[in-house]
Amino acid sequence: MTLPLKVNIVEVGPRDGLQNEAEFIPTDKKIELINSLNQTGLKRMEAASFVHPLYVPQMKDARAVLQGIEHSPDVQYMALVPNAKGYERALENGVKAVSLVVGASDSFNRNNVKMSREESLRNFEAVVKDARKNQIFIRYNIATSFWCPFEGRVEEKAVLEMVQEIDSQGVDEIVICDTIGRANPKQTAELFSQITAIGPRAAITAHLHDTYGFALANILAALKEGVTSFDTSIGGLGGCPFAPGAAGNAATEDVVFMLHEMGIETGIDIDALKQTLEIVKPLTKRELTGRLHKVQACAAAAN
Amino acid sequence: MTLPLKVNIVEVGPRDGLQNEAEFIPTDKKIELINSLNQTGLKRMEAASFVHPLYVPQMKDARAVLQGIEHSPDVQYMALVPNAKGYERALENGVKAVSLVVGASDSFNRNNVKMSREESLRNFEAVVKDARKNQIFIRYNIATSFWCPFEGRVEEKAVLEMVQEIDSQGVDEIVICDTIGRANPKQTAELFSQITAIGPRAAITAHLHDTYGFALANILAALKEGVTSFDTSIGGLGGCPFAPGAAGNAATEDVVFMLHEMGIETGIDIDALKQTLEIVKPLTKRELTGRLHKVQACAAAAN
Repeated sequence: MTLPLKVNIVEVGPRDGLQNEAEFIPTDKKIELINSLNQTGLKRMEAASFVHPLYVPQMKDARAVLQGIEHSPDVQYMALVPNAKGYERALENGVKAVSLVVGASDSFNRNNVKMSREESLRNFEAVVKDARKNQIFIRYNIATSFWCPFEGRVEEKAVLEMVQEIDSQGVDEIVICDTIGRANPKQTAELFSQITAIGPRAAITAHLHDTYGFALANILAALKEGVTSFDTSIGGLGGCPFAPGAAGNAATEDVVFMLHEMGIETGIDIDALKQTLEIVKPLTKRELTGRLHKVQACAAAAN
Repeated sequence: MTLPLKVNIVEVGPRDGLQNEAEFIPTDKKIELINSLNQTGLKRMEAASFVHPLYVPQMKDARAVLQGIEHSPDVQYMALVPNAKGYERALENGVKAVSLVVGASDSFNRNNVKMSREESLRNFEAVVKDARKNQIFIRYNIATSFWCPFEGRVEEKAVLEMVQEIDSQGVDEIVICDTIGRANPKQTAELFSQITAIGPRAAITAHLHDTYGFALANILAALKEGVTSFDTSIGGLGGCPFAPGAAGNAATEDVVFMLHEMGIETGIDIDALKQTLEIVKPLTKRELTGRLHKVQACAAAAN
């Protein structure tokens, strides 16, 4: 089995994870979580989101979170921005890396950011230009790259065209998202194989939700197509408030454990992740979907 | 991605699943479960276990279960036997297919059946001869083929030698078991690649527990090495009473859904599996690890 020697993990728990919690999580708890993640060896994370507080009230304290956290010189902190206005707010708050998002499916994009897909793409063209001028790192998410909760399976061709268009704008990273966790390993392999064939200049990251429990199998499929960067969420936190039925991301600790077991380096310390999990557990009433902490609990009970 | 067109699923929930339930499940409930599984399109299942009731009291009604179920002419019902005595009891009860089990790890085997690995192998040599003479189907499980809860990682060489020895006896099927669910996809691919290279006459089946959530990724890895038969357990029931910390098998409904999504035939009806899940849920106090029924529940709540 041919596998990469090293993989990069992007932690999205503080943003994609927490935004799904209905009850507001106090700012100091969010800061505690991010500061704990700082100690794990993770090099990149989505720390906040500049979305309208009416739509995602959980993220209304983005400014306070970014001001309150310890900024490790080794870690890149990214903020999600849904539109040009969010981008402006992010810059006002000193953000150096933005995470733009547009849906490959028009219906999803309208539901997610109240614009057509084309409006989002045009809207972001100017954002990308400005960001490049200001040396802001540009991560560009293509949501619903496999399936849309409203339209069903998404055509590969639409995603490939978006990858080409976005890549031609000179962004740093393109994230291929299985927003509702409905992709299977074959579909995952096929799409990443075609994206790799395009040869984008931007780095390619896979963002795979675990709704049907396929996330690790999909990661394996993507790894074998040469993908070496994955979004994950501590504990498997998350879902999507605008994608009914979606579960959280692949759990960071499970992905890192699987990679390490296969001899792939991540630079992340599993024991440190377990300490962070103790901070995560009281933040949500839902049972975490990640498995590693359950094995620990089970082994502890057997002692 | 090169994948087989068709895969065989062996349902082990009524045996490997239920044996882990501490509270005794009434015989009529076990019969109801098996009769429901009969309606799903499954062609093979482990229906009972002739183990000493002192060790696995849950299986003490094996005789009554086998007498009570509807015997579909399309379904093969197998009974697990841990030793020669269990084999005799199985035959007395009209069993036509036996599932023998020996651990690749000596420590596990001693813990599981109170014999050394070599004693089990010798013990079963006579069983296999008798079974062949009586035209009994012989399924032969190699437990702890990847990891042992007491000894750690198991040497590939030991497993390969056992495969060769057992295959030379003329058994029908050899089952390679990740009893504690600790294998990773790379290890899985490597072991099955080597087993395939031996070219055994017996059919090869993979039995993968989902302790760390790796079962579907491991199934994907095995599929790509040409394995076309998998043990699964409805709802993800199970664990191992003699392997501390192990979770249940890969959930039948999740495996079947993943295979169908990849265009692989199983002959199994997902809707019928969902009906069986309604029978499974009240049998256990534990939350089922399978994902498919949770997505349904979530979608229902959103309506």
